[in-house]
Amino acid sequence: MSIAFPKGYRFAGVHCDVKPNTTKLDLALVVSDVPATAAGVYTKNLVCGAPVILDRSRTPGFGLRAVVVNSGVANACTGELGLVNATKMTALASAAIGAPENSSLVLSTGVIGVQLPMDNIARGIQDAARELAATETAFDNAAHAMMTTDTHPKTAARTLCCCDGSKITLAGMCKGAAMIGPNMATMLVILMTDAALDPEPAQDMLRRAADATFNCISVEGHTSTSDSVVFFANGVAHPAPLTGTDLVQFEQALLELCEELARMIPNDGEGVSHMITIDVSGCATRADAKQIAKNIANDPLVKTAICGADPNWGRIVSAAGWAGVPFDPGKVSLKVNGFPLYKDGMPLPFDKPLVSDHIRQNRETHFELSLQEGTESIRFWTSDLTAEYVRLNSDYTT
Amino acid sequence: MSIAFPKGYRFAGVHCDVKPNTTKLDLALVVSDVPATAAGVYTKNLVCGAPVILDRSRTPGFGLRAVVVNSGVANACTGELGLVNATKMTALASAAIGAPENSSLVLSTGVIGVQLPMDNIARGIQDAARELAATETAFDNAAHAMMTTDTHPKTAARTLCCCDGSKITLAGMCKGAAMIGPNMATMLVILMTDAALDPEPAQDMLRRAADATFNCISVEGHTSTSDSVVFFANGVAHPAPLTGTDLVQFEQALLELCEELARMIPNDGEGVSHMITIDVSGCATRADAKQIAKNIANDPLVKTAICGADPNWGRIVSAAGWAGVPFDPGKVSLKVNGFPLYKDGMPLPFDKPLVSDHIRQNRETHFELSLQEGTESIRFWTSDLTAEYVRLNSDYTT
Repeated sequence: MSIAFPKGYRFAGVHCDVKPNTTKLDLALVVSDVPATAAGVYTKNLVCGAPVILDRSRTPGFGLRAVVVNSGVANACTGELGLVNATKMTALASAAIGAPENSSLVLSTGVIGVQLPMDNIARGIQDAARELAATETAFDNAAHAMMTTDTHPKTAARTLCCCDGSKITLAGMCKGAAMIGPNMATMLVILMTDAALDPEPAQDMLRRAADATFNCISVEGHTSTSDSVVFFANGVAHPAPLTGTDLVQFEQALLELCEELARMIPNDGEGVSHMITIDVSGCATRADAKQIAKNIANDPLVKTAICGADPNWGRIVSAAGWAGVPFDPGKVSLKVNGFPLYKDGMPLPFDKPLVSDHIRQNRETHFELSLQEGTESIRFWTSDLTAEYVRLNSDYTT
Repeated sequence: MSIAFPKGYRFAGVHCDVKPNTTKLDLALVVSDVPATAAGVYTKNLVCGAPVILDRSRTPGFGLRAVVVNSGVANACTGELGLVNATKMTALASAAIGAPENSSLVLSTGVIGVQLPMDNIARGIQDAARELAATETAFDNAAHAMMTTDTHPKTAARTLCCCDGSKITLAGMCKGAAMIGPNMATMLVILMTDAALDPEPAQDMLRRAADATFNCISVEGHTSTSDSVVFFANGVAHPAPLTGTDLVQFEQALLELCEELARMIPNDGEGVSHMITIDVSGCATRADAKQIAKNIANDPLVKTAICGADPNWGRIVSAAGWAGVPFDPGKVSLKVNGFPLYKDGMPLPFDKPLVSDHIRQNRETHFELSLQEGTESIRFWTSDLTAEYVRLNSDYTT
């Protein structure tokens, strides 16, 4: 890993035995050296984890110092005690870095319906606080400590030059390979920058970026109980609020950073053999485009066809047809990996073995579905569905 | 097979080489000896087959005599020529039985995007018309000729005694194991009775019954381009319109018949190892209950857990949580196969190996999810998701 990380942050990842019978890292601490603005977007699942309830009450806000993350136990479906434990985790993290009690956020991922082993967690927080460092290794350890079934840590960064010559950095780390609770679970994302942002603009910017990226991915379409994206802005590199061109390029960089991280999740989906990018264009509204793209992305028949390297235009077009969005089916066209397969409501003749070979030999698969209802479009990312995914999600108890 | 079938209907199933390199039956003809009322409910997919477009224009209506069905080619995504061919199929069927040109319906299932081999179809219709008979064998042949990946024909019947002592019969045949276009596809259902019904009441009754049965099943949740349920009422056994108790018990029998047929479809789902019945109760509206049940039914994580005999309450409760229906998550309770696993928003202690063994040893799996938002409920049926399903839907091209 070689990644730029923003100024004024330190990181740690330790093992504190929340994941038993292993030495895998299971507790991460990300700290801003100075009070920061923090924003957050969270799962829309009504059944949500205690950390989500707590973080929602603290973001957007100013004066935040840290986020503590544990993997192995999700602290979801754990009732009052779960909320007490989540609150205690943030208080312990704050105390360990000498910050006010309510100045930390918390994220958890893993088995749901199980209470956290709080003694282990408390020890882990102490260990992590001692190891905090502004180094690539520490950043990498924190990213590792968030992982559940992920096969690799997921990090990305962007560096920008402001008009006044100062340099600001955005970085992020995330985890996610499927919603697999109660055994494993969830997408978690931590974003940070050394630029300064007020809480409300930070929240608005985060919501826009997440909407176009983290809310445009799926593995199997299950919205986890604990999905969270948190965003820290501490102003260490550039204390004055960004304006004009700086602000515009900052928001663009945040969007790109989120996209880079978001794509890593379906690409590391459980058992995945193809990463599928779905472009839907020519819609009346962006919401229409998203609904169609999502219906295609989550369709088991589309996903299994791509797993089998089948350019199955019929399943893709049909999945668009029942998405609940009105459109003229006589004006639908589709390309797969650049090959035109369907035009104006009718299948085109094409060299099936050639297109099939192209799908088989490329992990990246690209659908371009165009309607003629308007000018709105969206890009969505998903994974294929393999027998290995089913094995991972059905054989784990035996 | 030993099934009662209503008076005044004849049946045939023949092979006419729409399914090549096989002797499998691929064309069915169901004929009412007298003009009948016909009702129909069809796919909501915007991309729908030519037979759906044609049948929609003829139902509900009176004076219908026949339905001709072919399997092997779906006649969907076939443009103007597809509609011409569908119309021609009904004209040929009508002519072969000496009925007016527009008095037949048509159903097709199989590969989409391919034109029908009309010479074969025409020959098949002639052969079928010659073989028409009111026998169990003929009924069984017709049910066989509708099949695609179904492992067995699906038929059911009910016989009722009216208050005046006359006996009326309801019977049905259906096919469906997954929406698998463009290789195979679709749910098709033909219902018939020898009672008399006017078109509008027949349509209303069919819509209510289909809504509670055929619209409450899923295999993988993909709405096919060709789903159709058609219902004939010819009045041969009881020419006077049903009233009072007779009408009430008739509608109840129609509902039960539809339920019996509907359950057969996920139970014969591709690669299925468990048939799952989902009861959702305590909802504000029936639509809420259905939306929650459907979200659970189509969740790959729920389906793979049951495949693996895992009493995974977390996946089930979480799938309810993101169904888009507001409810108090602190008042959710769940039983699986009668075992209470979750009560008032919290997991209960339970003997996991015992419940797991119970799931493993029983093909029938039962979820009972209860909320406390109202008194509405629904029952939904689905299949589990197995590696065999993925194999069937990804390896078919190689």
